[in-house]
Amino acid sequence: MNYGVILASGKGTRIKDNINIPKQFRKINDKPVIIYTIQRFLKENLFDSIYIVVSKEYLEYTNNILKEYLESTKNIKIVCGGKERIDSITNSINSIVADNGCNEDDIIVIHDAVRPFVTDKILKNSIDGARKYDAVVCAMPVADTLLYSTNNIIVEKIPDRSMFYKGQAPDSFKLKTFIELLDNLTEEQKQKLTGTSQVCTFNNYPMHIIDGDELNFKITTKSDFALAEAIVKGMDNND
Amino acid sequence: MNYGVILASGKGTRIKDNINIPKQFRKINDKPVIIYTIQRFLKENLFDSIYIVVSKEYLEYTNNILKEYLESTKNIKIVCGGKERIDSITNSINSIVADNGCNEDDIIVIHDAVRPFVTDKILKNSIDGARKYDAVVCAMPVADTLLYSTNNIIVEKIPDRSMFYKGQAPDSFKLKTFIELLDNLTEEQKQKLTGTSQVCTFNNYPMHIIDGDELNFKITTKSDFALAEAIVKGMDNND
Repeated sequence: MNYGVILASGKGTRIKDNINIPKQFRKINDKPVIIYTIQRFLKENLFDSIYIVVSKEYLEYTNNILKEYLESTKNIKIVCGGKERIDSITNSINSIVADNGCNEDDIIVIHDAVRPFVTDKILKNSIDGARKYDAVVCAMPVADTLLYSTNNIIVEKIPDRSMFYKGQAPDSFKLKTFIELLDNLTEEQKQKLTGTSQVCTFNNYPMHIIDGDELNFKITTKSDFALAEAIVKGMDNND
Repeated sequence: MNYGVILASGKGTRIKDNINIPKQFRKINDKPVIIYTIQRFLKENLFDSIYIVVSKEYLEYTNNILKEYLESTKNIKIVCGGKERIDSITNSINSIVADNGCNEDDIIVIHDAVRPFVTDKILKNSIDGARKYDAVVCAMPVADTLLYSTNNIIVEKIPDRSMFYKGQAPDSFKLKTFIELLDNLTEEQKQKLTGTSQVCTFNNYPMHIIDGDELNFKITTKSDFALAEAIVKGMDNND
């Protein structure tokens, strides 16, 4: 089975305006960001089930918008997120295993709700990659000059950027492998975890890179929303 | 004196459409990108002269659009670019020195034509920084997870991103210092030069970081143009 996990329990509302709602629920052209993301996951029928992880106070809200915007919510389940990112991931894994068990060839694709323009190609490559290599991360080559500074004041060196990638999402895994890697983490490592990829690197477990896409950017700033708006309008015009 | 240098000799036309013109000359809302950039430099009267570096085949073209879009071209000079970035920079320095000599407190602010939304604050801070520290680079903290891979296949580590910055532009210098640093470079170093900051790092010369801005992005891809379009429209609405 292929499971999609969409992490949407972030509480980031600090875009410089007064709209007091987490970014994944803000609307682009009258549709919440998270709905775009879910629709990308639904589009090619790549997933047997999709788990949406939201914070407790948004459980009902999410349930309502799913019903409002989606034709069917059949294979979609809403899971309550935890305090930290790792807790949210663990909760989604627990739900998956409770619902379906864990089989040798199950794949889990972990994505951010605030990357609503993930492409079909990325989702396909990520599933195929996880099947082949056990663990894959979607990433883009770094295009900017990288500057390195340990004191945050003076540039110490300009590393060769050809060895650096910007991590995007999704990160995908064989479910079984991922559960084992999670179990292996110490409490200290769990505290330090900021992204899914570290579940691998903390275990020295090889994670293969699959090609990301400029379109698959994370919506964080006000200009990201402006760009998203422009993209959505462009998509509508091409319909 | 404060000199602005705007590098516009790039030939990049490889945005995925059929408009066969370098990005700095493409129009956003009916005005070429480079004009936005020049207008930012003109706005606060921070510069005594502005040198625009363009490739030979665009000398006349540039001259024409400056006349068409700017109220006055009084303190603006067009310089012919060289083969590599370093040659273009050298040509601009030579022009500045030929026109005005080189005085102890002259400042040079080197910017990319394809960063049309550089803010007043950045330009001011960059000039002040160069006066105080001799060499400054404008940069942003890295917001993405950084992945490190020497073979471009498997992630080897996830470096602590808090020590990494994305270089933007401008890079600003005391003119005299910059000329000395340039003179010190070996031919091999000059060949390797991809950005202005390396003129410092190759010399182990300290370069201070000043804060960049999301708005000061480089227009490279089709989505960058979409974002630029959205920003310009937003600016017009706020007028």
